[in-house]
Amino acid sequence: MDHSDLPHTNWRISERARKLTSSAIREILKVTERPEVISFAGGLPSPVTFPVERMREACERVTRDAPAAAFQYSATEGYAPLREWVAARYSKNGVTIRPSQVLMVTGSQQALDLLGKVLIDPASPVLVETPTYLGALQSFSMYEPRYVQVPTDENGLIPEGLTPALTQDARLLYAQPNFQNPTGRRLPLERRRALAEFARTSPFPVVEDDPYGALDYAGAPLPTLLSMAPDHIVHCGSFSKVLAPGLRLGYIIAPEELHFKLVQAKQATDLHTPSFTQRIVYEVVKDGFLDEHIPTIRTLYRDQCEAMLSSLERHMPEGVTWNRPEGGMFIWASLPKHIDTMQLLEAAVAENVAFVPGAPFYANDADHSALRLSFVTVPPARIDEGIARLAKLIRERI
Amino acid sequence: MDHSDLPHTNWRISERARKLTSSAIREILKVTERPEVISFAGGLPSPVTFPVERMREACERVTRDAPAAAFQYSATEGYAPLREWVAARYSKNGVTIRPSQVLMVTGSQQALDLLGKVLIDPASPVLVETPTYLGALQSFSMYEPRYVQVPTDENGLIPEGLTPALTQDARLLYAQPNFQNPTGRRLPLERRRALAEFARTSPFPVVEDDPYGALDYAGAPLPTLLSMAPDHIVHCGSFSKVLAPGLRLGYIIAPEELHFKLVQAKQATDLHTPSFTQRIVYEVVKDGFLDEHIPTIRTLYRDQCEAMLSSLERHMPEGVTWNRPEGGMFIWASLPKHIDTMQLLEAAVAENVAFVPGAPFYANDADHSALRLSFVTVPPARIDEGIARLAKLIRERI
Repeated sequence: MDHSDLPHTNWRISERARKLTSSAIREILKVTERPEVISFAGGLPSPVTFPVERMREACERVTRDAPAAAFQYSATEGYAPLREWVAARYSKNGVTIRPSQVLMVTGSQQALDLLGKVLIDPASPVLVETPTYLGALQSFSMYEPRYVQVPTDENGLIPEGLTPALTQDARLLYAQPNFQNPTGRRLPLERRRALAEFARTSPFPVVEDDPYGALDYAGAPLPTLLSMAPDHIVHCGSFSKVLAPGLRLGYIIAPEELHFKLVQAKQATDLHTPSFTQRIVYEVVKDGFLDEHIPTIRTLYRDQCEAMLSSLERHMPEGVTWNRPEGGMFIWASLPKHIDTMQLLEAAVAENVAFVPGAPFYANDADHSALRLSFVTVPPARIDEGIARLAKLIRERI
Repeated sequence: MDHSDLPHTNWRISERARKLTSSAIREILKVTERPEVISFAGGLPSPVTFPVERMREACERVTRDAPAAAFQYSATEGYAPLREWVAARYSKNGVTIRPSQVLMVTGSQQALDLLGKVLIDPASPVLVETPTYLGALQSFSMYEPRYVQVPTDENGLIPEGLTPALTQDARLLYAQPNFQNPTGRRLPLERRRALAEFARTSPFPVVEDDPYGALDYAGAPLPTLLSMAPDHIVHCGSFSKVLAPGLRLGYIIAPEELHFKLVQAKQATDLHTPSFTQRIVYEVVKDGFLDEHIPTIRTLYRDQCEAMLSSLERHMPEGVTWNRPEGGMFIWASLPKHIDTMQLLEAAVAENVAFVPGAPFYANDADHSALRLSFVTVPPARIDEGIARLAKLIRERI
């Protein structure tokens, strides 16, 4: 957009706002709205998984049975029955999560903002995976931390890497153990045990961000860090990937001490998450609906993932590698080191195919030859066409 | 709540989170949930004003006609038709507001958080009215400003008080020109002109927070600051008081330069406001519904206000003064200086009547003998009973 004709102000903005630059992903998404573009860029759940009919019925019930409460201001902590439902869902195998640990938030992106607000001072160290979720970097950066990258390999974060020297004075460790965005990696059981053990004595919280945990294709989830150390982990969950992201509904499970601070920060941030959306989601999930619904999402995404893996096998030249995700929405591919995926993206968009370059997912020292592929929004037939186009562009550069 | 039996962490929290203390209002509201309490404390709109039937129809239409879009991730700026509607509503009498100036937010409380994020550095001066909206102090305080109180009188902010010495290095001036929370004051036309003129050359924005503007009892609104200096004012609006607060929907109208920074900050904060609630509100308002709906709210609140004013006349002893609001939801009362309204509140709650003490509404140098009375949630018969109880307690202290 050309701003030259717009009036200008001479208002001074904050240091943190000065550092804000336009997100590459955001600019890409604008281009890929054109229908002719086959986009593997977006992290958008497939809309065929939205349980529209149940949502409609829930709206009907909420507006009929409790309109005064659903449309009124409500408690910052969230709708009590939904908080109880969340606590009960995580209370199993001898683990008890208390409703008083649960804070409902406006999408789990808000969880990250609130955690940044309550835990990060300017220049304080924040530990992140290598690479890590771009949205977390965006949220935390508003509080101006110093990022420290934790060593990872193809199985994710390496707990032995959390040395005293690396973790000194840290305010939090942020991790996505399940089907991480962007790599699709799942942290193995032994590493989870080691990380939970670390959390038990750590002077800072381990934040387990888990938007994709329910999307394991085999339906055999690994235990969460929360279940291994329920009083020492901050767990962020979301309804975005199992119901619908447009409701913007997630939650933070945290020890009460931190919970109370998060509630105060949330009150200052937006008073509370919409009562109306919370009640709708409660109506949708309260009778066990997710347990029948989630397997249909898993099957769909597993098939889409298989389709993309087959296409990658079929079309990609030697020198390109990728992982085989056990769940989630993303494949992470590595190209020969001399190929810059940001430049590749420009060529790709000209050929009507899109992905997200890997570099923005690194807090420091980016890998410029990696890329993220989402396989959940494009139907299998177009997946093959898109991967073929992409492979051709890569082959030309090898 | 007794936390002694809960597990403790040794996690270090941020400086800003350390300064967070429990809100007095919040603690009060807990007590006043008991049905026997006549509460003039809450700023809750009367639920009889919620257009439930129209909301239900809107849900029906949105879930039928656009479920994939309504439940999907969407643009950070907000739903385009709603942004256009907002811009059109403010474009009149020769003033043009561009949709590109409009950012949809999760209640106008979020507007304040985003403005704090983008404008305030630690220790930078922020100008506020004396007293000012408590929620704004809570939002801005997360960014650790130094508050500077602008002189006010019974007509609100005094523009002549904005001297170079007082306003030096300020990052923003925050004001509620219409029926201010907590005082109910409306800024007169001449002062609006002076303030708009000030904004035109000011090196920082004048933020016009206007949740109550539509609630003028005579239906004769004074022009907004925005209409007087459309490229030099940041205007915050809300659907909370004219439709329903439980939807958490508001907007910021700002010059594009600042708008782009606010969009980036919002993306880091919660990605976007729920697509679903935005589409519902658009369906409700698009055909001019507010123009028929708002007068019914005005009439209701005017009658409730009259009822409270009559009760105050009838019961209050000499030495107690209050204003006659021309709109909005609040009356501001001043007691003899030796009465501390925080202590009075404790006695009042014991007699099952509640209000909000004035002190928390001051950034500095609080007046401890003022109090805020909301007249919108309690029916007239109970208003008289509540004011009688309160007057008795005050009389005992004079």
